[in-house]
Amino acid sequence: MTMSFPTSSPAAPFAVLATAFTASDPETLHLLEKYLICVDQNGIISAVIPPADPRYAEQKSAYQQNNALIELGDDQYLMPGMIDVHVHAPQWPQMGKALDLPLYAWLQDNTFPLEARFSDTDFARRVYAPMVDALLANGTTTAMYFASAHNAASLALAEICATKGQRALVGRIAMDNPEQCPPFYRDSSAHQAVDDTAQFIRDVQTLVTPQSNLVLPVITPRFIPSCTDDLLTGLGELAGQTGCHVQTHCSESDWAHEYVKNRFGIHDAQALHKFGLLTRQTIMAHCNFLSDDDMDTLRATGAGIAHCPLSNFYFANSVFPLRHGLQQPLHIGLATDIAGGHSPSMFDSCRHLLTAACALNDGVNPQLSAKERGRPGAKADFIHAFWLATGGGGEALNLPIGQLAPGFAFDALLIDCQSPDSNVIIWPEFDDHRDVLQKIIYNATRCNVSRVWVQGRVVTER
Amino acid sequence: MTMSFPTSSPAAPFAVLATAFTASDPETLHLLEKYLICVDQNGIISAVIPPADPRYAEQKSAYQQNNALIELGDDQYLMPGMIDVHVHAPQWPQMGKALDLPLYAWLQDNTFPLEARFSDTDFARRVYAPMVDALLANGTTTAMYFASAHNAASLALAEICATKGQRALVGRIAMDNPEQCPPFYRDSSAHQAVDDTAQFIRDVQTLVTPQSNLVLPVITPRFIPSCTDDLLTGLGELAGQTGCHVQTHCSESDWAHEYVKNRFGIHDAQALHKFGLLTRQTIMAHCNFLSDDDMDTLRATGAGIAHCPLSNFYFANSVFPLRHGLQQPLHIGLATDIAGGHSPSMFDSCRHLLTAACALNDGVNPQLSAKERGRPGAKADFIHAFWLATGGGGEALNLPIGQLAPGFAFDALLIDCQSPDSNVIIWPEFDDHRDVLQKIIYNATRCNVSRVWVQGRVVTER
Repeated sequence: MTMSFPTSSPAAPFAVLATAFTASDPETLHLLEKYLICVDQNGIISAVIPPADPRYAEQKSAYQQNNALIELGDDQYLMPGMIDVHVHAPQWPQMGKALDLPLYAWLQDNTFPLEARFSDTDFARRVYAPMVDALLANGTTTAMYFASAHNAASLALAEICATKGQRALVGRIAMDNPEQCPPFYRDSSAHQAVDDTAQFIRDVQTLVTPQSNLVLPVITPRFIPSCTDDLLTGLGELAGQTGCHVQTHCSESDWAHEYVKNRFGIHDAQALHKFGLLTRQTIMAHCNFLSDDDMDTLRATGAGIAHCPLSNFYFANSVFPLRHGLQQPLHIGLATDIAGGHSPSMFDSCRHLLTAACALNDGVNPQLSAKERGRPGAKADFIHAFWLATGGGGEALNLPIGQLAPGFAFDALLIDCQSPDSNVIIWPEFDDHRDVLQKIIYNATRCNVSRVWVQGRVVTER
Repeated sequence: MTMSFPTSSPAAPFAVLATAFTASDPETLHLLEKYLICVDQNGIISAVIPPADPRYAEQKSAYQQNNALIELGDDQYLMPGMIDVHVHAPQWPQMGKALDLPLYAWLQDNTFPLEARFSDTDFARRVYAPMVDALLANGTTTAMYFASAHNAASLALAEICATKGQRALVGRIAMDNPEQCPPFYRDSSAHQAVDDTAQFIRDVQTLVTPQSNLVLPVITPRFIPSCTDDLLTGLGELAGQTGCHVQTHCSESDWAHEYVKNRFGIHDAQALHKFGLLTRQTIMAHCNFLSDDDMDTLRATGAGIAHCPLSNFYFANSVFPLRHGLQQPLHIGLATDIAGGHSPSMFDSCRHLLTAACALNDGVNPQLSAKERGRPGAKADFIHAFWLATGGGGEALNLPIGQLAPGFAFDALLIDCQSPDSNVIIWPEFDDHRDVLQKIIYNATRCNVSRVWVQGRVVTER
């Protein structure tokens, strides 16, 4: 069963006549050439009609007569909106800096002090409002956010997303372990953190704005090292009671993986499972060091993975074995991991997914023989990247988003290959539509994102 | 001795009052806060004056009175232009596609047929003119180009660069080995290829336009597998006679490295040296599989390396050990390697340099222990990347470019962090100037390149 969201405020139905790209699984790309994509009054795709369909001409002229047909230009393409399944919202101001530091210094000297500032809700609003604008402008229609350990600031983020029309899953971080969290930034007790999380869930669920259905609360233990057993137990119980989404980090780095092994004698995934934190609505960031047994546990529970290829390079001491994960199959989405990842662009995440997969496949150290160096079978192509950034994210979140297909929300991007700063260079004499998508995945930037819809509503337009 | 270029056409001197970034070696960043950078009538930097200098006020007002002072805004920064030391110009139409193919299919089925089309010089002009525009717009003030195996088309590229004002080193590719080059795209004999190369050098040297001093010819054996011994011998002799730049590929992949070992019993670098092709004006792309002996040979000859981190991921089966190369020290520049690399942006090259260095440092395969996985000491930071993209490229090319310092050509970029599509997000309350540069290196795109000067002349402006 896929979770559903409440219907949006009513609006007029419309259709987009577009050449569109959508993927229905990691390997299957659909090229919808001059299709009519029909959107109902709730922002849900009601039909996807190919030109050969007998209804096509009639439907097209009906929308035209209602002044409800959007027809794309020759160098314009439609694709599902990007779904970023792991973003640390309060780290927005430090995006693209301090990446020359080791993880411990990055976290303790930069990230924790910055996140602690979000006790000031005005400061939070000052950061979050332009951040949501920037992510929408980059084409991110859905984001799953780690906020901070403050209810008010985290609620402000949820409100800002609702107001600006970004689909968002927002978590108030819980972190109470005095051995791993600094005194200036931690929950005072497991009890308080669980209570505050429960209150945050209620507050988000009762947010009432015309677009409030776009925002969901998320139970968010930072990662096992930050949390006492009591906190993990309490949050697991809350997940069972509420059915809410859960997010955390899992087996990211050598240090984090070893820490959990030392504390519990088992891997992160097994420990999270014991605490009741692995559900069909769970997203775990990274998961680089999963064993095959861990993957079996994920598969059995339906829990998903946020693949963060860019921050993997900097902080995970390794590359997540994406193809192996897809083969299980596991639910896997793609993420920027701002600010462990320095780019807000999910197009960049696609690119880094591809280079990371190359690195794992061939290996990197020329001092080793080719045989010792690589891990054959790990290579990915642009369709895997496109899937993870769109439909894969929707599947991992268990929401009907990420595909241009009936029943899915119309969260979509109009990509213009002719925008003034475009590095997407199309040669009609050489490039078919599949090539066009490949070139978009490899070179599109924010400048190519010409219009952004979330649930049928235009939220960004240039 | 650094090679010099002829003086440019006379123009009025001017100065830029800017906060600027420049590096004088791989580890040394200079932050020039509100400096006066003075450019003479030949486009050469005549002085770099700090505010504390007694001449500052007087000089500033003198330039002001001559209406020759350009004062940058608060969110604008000056930096040296990007130097891309390895670009395959005729592969521009396939940039960002076919990267899901193995090297052999990529080369034989896509790249060679495309390059062969440049026998049509009109087609060449149709590709090269917008390519040079796009590279300038991305901030590439100097490019070292592999053109194709056609004199007319390669000369057209040189003319286009001269006309548009991009500093360029252009090579007409030589490739005559019937065992490795397809019949539809190869030189008919070593003799013909050497003669044509000699003619190309003369033609480029006699190109007469007001900006012709910007373009230099390059002797360009594609790579050893493409060339017979006779061709390598002839081109080595030509290098000795002319003193021209030389460019080729060197020990890029397992296949290429093994091929040369099998043919000559030695590594690429040693073979190229025997043929007289390693000089202070030589740039070899990749060099991933250099031994320490090979590095000694490079150091002794002064030959330089084009580090191509992005295409390394796709085609080199490994990552070039950059830090090890810098420690020798070798001359190393940075490159996009279009279209083996999918991005025309040298900012992207910087980013991929950094992820590649992380991957080599920590390793990538989580199945291996941390100790087996990585190669400690390989990590790089944004200053290394900035150096390679600017001063390092100038040093490798043996030209006075890539630094904002007296005697260097004023090839420079005005970076605007507030451009409409900017993902460079500056927080004045948190970010000092060093952070600003780090954020530029990590997130600048073409949209942030607001003005481009080459040798004092504005060649792109938005």
